[in-house]
Amino acid sequence: MQQAKYTIGIDFGTLSARAVVVRVDDGHEMASAEHVYEHAVLTRSLPVGDARLPSEWALQVPSDYRNALKTAVPQAVKLAGVDPGDVIGIGTDFTSCTMVPVRADGTPLCELPAFADRPHAYAKLWRHHSPQPQADRINAVAADRNEPWLKRYGGSISSEWEFAKALEILEQDPDVYHAIDHWVEAADWIVWQLCGRYVRNACSAGYKGILQDGRYPTRDFLTALNPGFADFVGTKLAHPIGHLGHAAGALTEQAARWTGLPVGLPVAVGNVDAHVTAAAANCLEPGQLLAIMGTSTCHVMNSDVLQEVPGMCGVVDGGIVNGYWGYEAGQSGVGDIFSWFINNCVPASVAEQARDRNISVHDMLTELAADQRVGEHGLVALDWHSGNRSVLVDHQLSGVIVGQTLATTCADMYRALLEATAYGTRMIVETFVDSGVPVREIIVGGGLLKNRLLMQIYADVVGLPLSTVDSAQAPALGAAIHAATAAGAYHDVPAAAKQMGGRTRGAYSPNVDNVARYDDLYAQYVKLHNWFGHGNAIMRTLREISTPAHQGASR
Amino acid sequence: MQQAKYTIGIDFGTLSARAVVVRVDDGHEMASAEHVYEHAVLTRSLPVGDARLPSEWALQVPSDYRNALKTAVPQAVKLAGVDPGDVIGIGTDFTSCTMVPVRADGTPLCELPAFADRPHAYAKLWRHHSPQPQADRINAVAADRNEPWLKRYGGSISSEWEFAKALEILEQDPDVYHAIDHWVEAADWIVWQLCGRYVRNACSAGYKGILQDGRYPTRDFLTALNPGFADFVGTKLAHPIGHLGHAAGALTEQAARWTGLPVGLPVAVGNVDAHVTAAAANCLEPGQLLAIMGTSTCHVMNSDVLQEVPGMCGVVDGGIVNGYWGYEAGQSGVGDIFSWFINNCVPASVAEQARDRNISVHDMLTELAADQRVGEHGLVALDWHSGNRSVLVDHQLSGVIVGQTLATTCADMYRALLEATAYGTRMIVETFVDSGVPVREIIVGGGLLKNRLLMQIYADVVGLPLSTVDSAQAPALGAAIHAATAAGAYHDVPAAAKQMGGRTRGAYSPNVDNVARYDDLYAQYVKLHNWFGHGNAIMRTLREISTPAHQGASR
Repeated sequence: MQQAKYTIGIDFGTLSARAVVVRVDDGHEMASAEHVYEHAVLTRSLPVGDARLPSEWALQVPSDYRNALKTAVPQAVKLAGVDPGDVIGIGTDFTSCTMVPVRADGTPLCELPAFADRPHAYAKLWRHHSPQPQADRINAVAADRNEPWLKRYGGSISSEWEFAKALEILEQDPDVYHAIDHWVEAADWIVWQLCGRYVRNACSAGYKGILQDGRYPTRDFLTALNPGFADFVGTKLAHPIGHLGHAAGALTEQAARWTGLPVGLPVAVGNVDAHVTAAAANCLEPGQLLAIMGTSTCHVMNSDVLQEVPGMCGVVDGGIVNGYWGYEAGQSGVGDIFSWFINNCVPASVAEQARDRNISVHDMLTELAADQRVGEHGLVALDWHSGNRSVLVDHQLSGVIVGQTLATTCADMYRALLEATAYGTRMIVETFVDSGVPVREIIVGGGLLKNRLLMQIYADVVGLPLSTVDSAQAPALGAAIHAATAAGAYHDVPAAAKQMGGRTRGAYSPNVDNVARYDDLYAQYVKLHNWFGHGNAIMRTLREISTPAHQGASR
Repeated sequence: MQQAKYTIGIDFGTLSARAVVVRVDDGHEMASAEHVYEHAVLTRSLPVGDARLPSEWALQVPSDYRNALKTAVPQAVKLAGVDPGDVIGIGTDFTSCTMVPVRADGTPLCELPAFADRPHAYAKLWRHHSPQPQADRINAVAADRNEPWLKRYGGSISSEWEFAKALEILEQDPDVYHAIDHWVEAADWIVWQLCGRYVRNACSAGYKGILQDGRYPTRDFLTALNPGFADFVGTKLAHPIGHLGHAAGALTEQAARWTGLPVGLPVAVGNVDAHVTAAAANCLEPGQLLAIMGTSTCHVMNSDVLQEVPGMCGVVDGGIVNGYWGYEAGQSGVGDIFSWFINNCVPASVAEQARDRNISVHDMLTELAADQRVGEHGLVALDWHSGNRSVLVDHQLSGVIVGQTLATTCADMYRALLEATAYGTRMIVETFVDSGVPVREIIVGGGLLKNRLLMQIYADVVGLPLSTVDSAQAPALGAAIHAATAAGAYHDVPAAAKQMGGRTRGAYSPNVDNVARYDDLYAQYVKLHNWFGHGNAIMRTLREISTPAHQGASR
């Protein structure tokens, strides 16, 4: 009997990193350990100096990521009780687009004493949203010049992505900008730390770095944005691309000391949390739409056709696995809308009822909402409290609820919000289908999976069977699957995913009666969606009026 | 020095009656006393028998009204310390349209043992809403036949009014219907109890009894509704009309015993609570719009022009005072929307804050809302939680709130609802003006007067100075003013109102900056108003889907 082999997957999240030891032949998760980032997210000040961070800023300290290699990895190996010599590869996934400004040797600028008190020298977390003006200009100039890549991103480049974040540095702190040798995805920086080589992963480069058909935006385009930005791609961004599931290099002596793993171990090319989860769920076939549902929802799906789908986040060749067009879409608010409701809209009476029964307010409301038949509450809502990522790509949009009467309860409104997010998913699915990109199955992962009412509502609203991701730490498992492929244990990622990943097929089936009733309700949602999305500027006007600037400028 | 003279006004409300003793020369309120109705509102069962009342039913027991004459009146006189011999007249006002089915001598059917267990034999309170199907047929048949009176009611006869309530009896309990000799407004029934004569007041007959230009709906029309209803007007409804402020008769010996007042005292023609308040506020000139703001809002205004204003409740010749066209409009939900919000949408944290400070949740939210500048919350709402009386006349409509984000607080939403009701008032004012009926001043009475933030919002939204009614028991004062006129102390009601009534002119002045900002917000409200009111059937469809019937019938 052959000795079992293992890979390690490390999922770098927003507040912590989790390392999982996985058995290569069947994907069994042996043990895991978590490292909570010492500095969490910097939103007000830096660890050094007295700079105050403006609102919408979100920075991180890269050494926190490095520390996870030193703590969580050896701890997970120890807990798993496996011999480090039986570990055959290591893989990672990261939040994205999280960016680190580094010198030529990979040292983050914030680790240099000269830059330790400069906010722009730190890692910029995905949700650092202050470069919105830069993103607006990128989109306006690209639309104006009819840049061919714009439609690959549903017509809109996000303030979260590589170009907007870099342009912000140039325009706010040119010293830092000029000191940057490489503008690196954290997903690739951590791999660089492990194997000593900088390899740019195809996923981030495509979705966040505007690399399409092997080309970045042109020098002319960059000049039009800002003459000082003309050389950005050539001097700071472009770098050899690594395919997902390939090895970026081998574990260095230093990283071997940190992790307690053997020198020379294959290290997989960096990757992104949502995208590796598709491997963990073994849903890499065309038409399998994976929805990772948490505070927001990220949708990823492979297809063998290239289409320009309105309002998609992006389509990237090999963006999820080599050989397919990887599509990404998203809903900017899902779980955070439910949390907002719980915190702001639930009366004391219901909160007390939950306390008396020793259950959460979420569970209490879910129970009350589950007791209703479809449509009984007479409500329909728009799930745009945090804007609309797909298919309208407009973060100025906001929430709506229609149909309240004096008999409307908070459970009614809660259920209406659950449903609104399901309608949002159906809108995305229908937009794919209408654009010629088939969707055949919905697979759900993420924290909201545990709400069974929500899952049934999604199955009934979308009218498709709903599969669920089995692993509770799916991104780390996905990273371990990529590690197994990079180590040569499998021919490619889909082959590894078949053995190591998994999902529960048809965990929820649409109820025929409910599907019919939701068709009627969804038709109302569509009317609201189109009117508020395209038919008027009410939400934009309300936002404008709400800004302090408007007060002075009024009339 | 002449001995001061007094009149007594009695305001019959939904749950109690209040008698006030008023000095005739200056309207000073000497004292008042309240009588709480023993049976309050019957919504589930009768005092006799085991009949169960269906939902939307609301009955009352007429002897409760009679008891107020025996208790509140003598008590108020005693508290005032006046000699009953110095009381020169008595007047009343009543909720409307509250109807009493009686025999020829005025005895309510429910007081006859044979009918005491029959729900339809009781008084039907204004908010008895079950005759909606009858009202729907009245409107459909009237529209179909192009009945000339329909436009005098903004195109719609209410389920609350005399015809729908009577037709319901015919169709549900013909025995009771056939036993009715007179179908009497409670406003007139109480006057009948005082003076022994049945006089039908011009206000109720016009607004609720479809008496226009001296004519009721024709026999042909009634036959088209139901052949058994053909003689309704001739046999049960029509009766000599008394003008407002005239005497209906003199106090009988029996009523003198009940009240402790002199036999032969002039008794004023019956009247309606909202309409007498215009006298109490001394706002009887054309263009003075009185808004009585409580759970709902009733607007009354005199004009010297007759126009068919879309969506008005009614226009009646002499409906408020003789010699003017009296207009009535309304908002079906105002204070009850705020109460619904307080009960269903305020988180425990805010409720606790209010408790700690020993103030009401209303006051707590008002304080938080008052702290914001106009438009800061980024919201706009439609105030249709209880339907829309004016100008859309559609009780299938429902509430909407637009603009919620993850930063929206409950104080934001509360303020948005306050504003929504102000936009509703502005819509009514603009509809009057656009139809050629000028509005020059807004006068506010009713329980919501005490919310100073709300008042300032109304002044800023409507852009007119806002006067406030001085008296805290304005309807009873208004009734006393009518009593003084009926007693001959004044030539007519306006002359009496000038001396006895009053308002604080310009209690709230529009803030110029806020007016400008509210113009922008109101423009958004108008877009929502027109789209949800005329542009789509979303709210109607949601209601339809919400009914249990839809479940069976689905698809």
